[in-house]
Amino acid sequence: MQTKAFAAQSATTPLAETVIDRREPGPKDVLIDILYCGVCHSDLHTARGEWGGVKFPSVPGHEIVGRVSAVGGEVTKVAPGDIVGVGCMVDSCRTCHSCEEGLEQFCEGPHGFLGTYNGWMDGSGDNTFGGYSAAITVDEHFVLRINHDEADLAAVAPLLCAGITTWSPLRHWNVGPGKKVGVVGIGGLGHMGVKLAHALGAHVVAFTTSESKRQAALDLGADEVVVSTDPGQMKAHARSFDFILNTVAAPHNLDAYTTLLKRDGALTLVGVPSSPHPSPNIFPLIAGRRSIAGSLIGGIAETQEMLDFCAEHGITSDIEMIAMQDIDAAYDRMLKSDVKYRFVIDMATLKAA
Amino acid sequence: MQTKAFAAQSATTPLAETVIDRREPGPKDVLIDILYCGVCHSDLHTARGEWGGVKFPSVPGHEIVGRVSAVGGEVTKVAPGDIVGVGCMVDSCRTCHSCEEGLEQFCEGPHGFLGTYNGWMDGSGDNTFGGYSAAITVDEHFVLRINHDEADLAAVAPLLCAGITTWSPLRHWNVGPGKKVGVVGIGGLGHMGVKLAHALGAHVVAFTTSESKRQAALDLGADEVVVSTDPGQMKAHARSFDFILNTVAAPHNLDAYTTLLKRDGALTLVGVPSSPHPSPNIFPLIAGRRSIAGSLIGGIAETQEMLDFCAEHGITSDIEMIAMQDIDAAYDRMLKSDVKYRFVIDMATLKAA
Repeated sequence: MQTKAFAAQSATTPLAETVIDRREPGPKDVLIDILYCGVCHSDLHTARGEWGGVKFPSVPGHEIVGRVSAVGGEVTKVAPGDIVGVGCMVDSCRTCHSCEEGLEQFCEGPHGFLGTYNGWMDGSGDNTFGGYSAAITVDEHFVLRINHDEADLAAVAPLLCAGITTWSPLRHWNVGPGKKVGVVGIGGLGHMGVKLAHALGAHVVAFTTSESKRQAALDLGADEVVVSTDPGQMKAHARSFDFILNTVAAPHNLDAYTTLLKRDGALTLVGVPSSPHPSPNIFPLIAGRRSIAGSLIGGIAETQEMLDFCAEHGITSDIEMIAMQDIDAAYDRMLKSDVKYRFVIDMATLKAA
Repeated sequence: MQTKAFAAQSATTPLAETVIDRREPGPKDVLIDILYCGVCHSDLHTARGEWGGVKFPSVPGHEIVGRVSAVGGEVTKVAPGDIVGVGCMVDSCRTCHSCEEGLEQFCEGPHGFLGTYNGWMDGSGDNTFGGYSAAITVDEHFVLRINHDEADLAAVAPLLCAGITTWSPLRHWNVGPGKKVGVVGIGGLGHMGVKLAHALGAHVVAFTTSESKRQAALDLGADEVVVSTDPGQMKAHARSFDFILNTVAAPHNLDAYTTLLKRDGALTLVGVPSSPHPSPNIFPLIAGRRSIAGSLIGGIAETQEMLDFCAEHGITSDIEMIAMQDIDAAYDRMLKSDVKYRFVIDMATLKAA
């Protein structure tokens, strides 16, 4: 099937309209008419070839919301007309321990998971094309049900990556009532972390480098806001956090946060810095049995759990809608953190072009 | 009470015999005639002033085994004649969450725990004098019961620091049957880590930089030995460990170990390097939800648990006995790793001097 898409033909050319092949739905496949696609920093890094191993042409996009237009004969999860989502993964080995436990993001099979774009995690095999397109064919296992009001669907799209990337660690580290939780960085990921931690019942402290973001963070659901560049504000929170979710990928001093953890607390990172963080001081880890950990998106089961929780609690992302044709300008604004908090592409603009 | 001891009068003078004051036992105190004292690297760093805040004169020693010679009127835990131990702590606030949970090493009170030597952890208050002495007075809460055969008592002494420092993380991270556990560094701490992990029923892999230590590590109870400088040997164990206990305080590449962990595995450090480790790569943490953590000695309850376990399983440290007068020579040999695996001072040599 020929499908309209927006692709980077190389690392140095702007994204532009093209036509890609989508497979006809097999017995377990779902064909999705894409309505909206969120814009993740990974899209930008991939399209501009900033990560190794990018396959071109590259069609980014892994925060996909759409309507089912056809299903294969064995599909039971969804039906034509249903509103569904697709996140960062479209396949995995399905048989390793992690896949069997519903943690496909940690697939231990020969290739890791199959990314929604840029193919298998190990770089082998064919390319895959993501959500900057009019339609996509996906195995039903990797299709998520969406129960939000239809008016909210654009703002649901970022839940498929930014949402699950923050939800999974919040849940894994048992964030909930009675827990004091920090969220470092109030951007695409962090603003979802604040909303979700708040909705889970935790006492949420937002860390930002900018006093100017105080009110915005409170509006998102933070109980307190700490300007991380102010040592006095930081020190007032020493040894008080059960968990800190750190969404900042830029290299920075992790000791500022490990020392804020209680005994047995974890500082969990969800971003890989392009150059290393300053080496963390081991002493605060030893003196409080604290840990520095990482977390990667989330499995399909927990993504569905997150979507259901968000529908129930009326949670969506704060977004700015753009036309497909404005993607490069949006990337440039993202690099300046000039978005509150996520761009979402209205795919009608691609279909109408 | 005037008590013979061996003290460093300054960071630059060798340790020498002196006389110190010990308090008369109060109602809850235990007076202990010290039989043996293990020699920890912390002793050396303190006596030679290599750590900030050392109070001189300094009497090191926190791996103490002795016989109760008198008890206060309210003491119920032990009686005169009992064989007992004292480890790294002789007091704490007793009222904070960590103290109430039996994790006095993480005391959140105003001073932290009171070290057996060098006083309160926060540097405040009077000095304390450790086990390089003929006798010590200790509150019964910080006195451990020892059930080993009397012939083994010298080799029990290192359990009070090296033993509990490895036991506590092995237990906290649920090491036991069905778990694959690594122990990095086969010295005073590491040799206990191998013995304890083996006795707990885990599959134990010892990591050493030296092929020459292979047989010794197997003799300690390792199921496998990996020479960590051999990339091929390391790679064969990728993504296979539930837990790795890293006893090496010298700066080294932690990525070599994080990549050997399974999903959700922890690399736990028990030593603070004098200069930072190379900054760990965050990617293996994110890609496997792995963590780098720390652990600090152990609480009184778990120290008793460890001593009871070791008595039951016939576990002691491998030691070389020395006279008190040879302590500086022993320090020099420790700096060259020339000891298998722990020096223990026969305190009769001090008493007879």
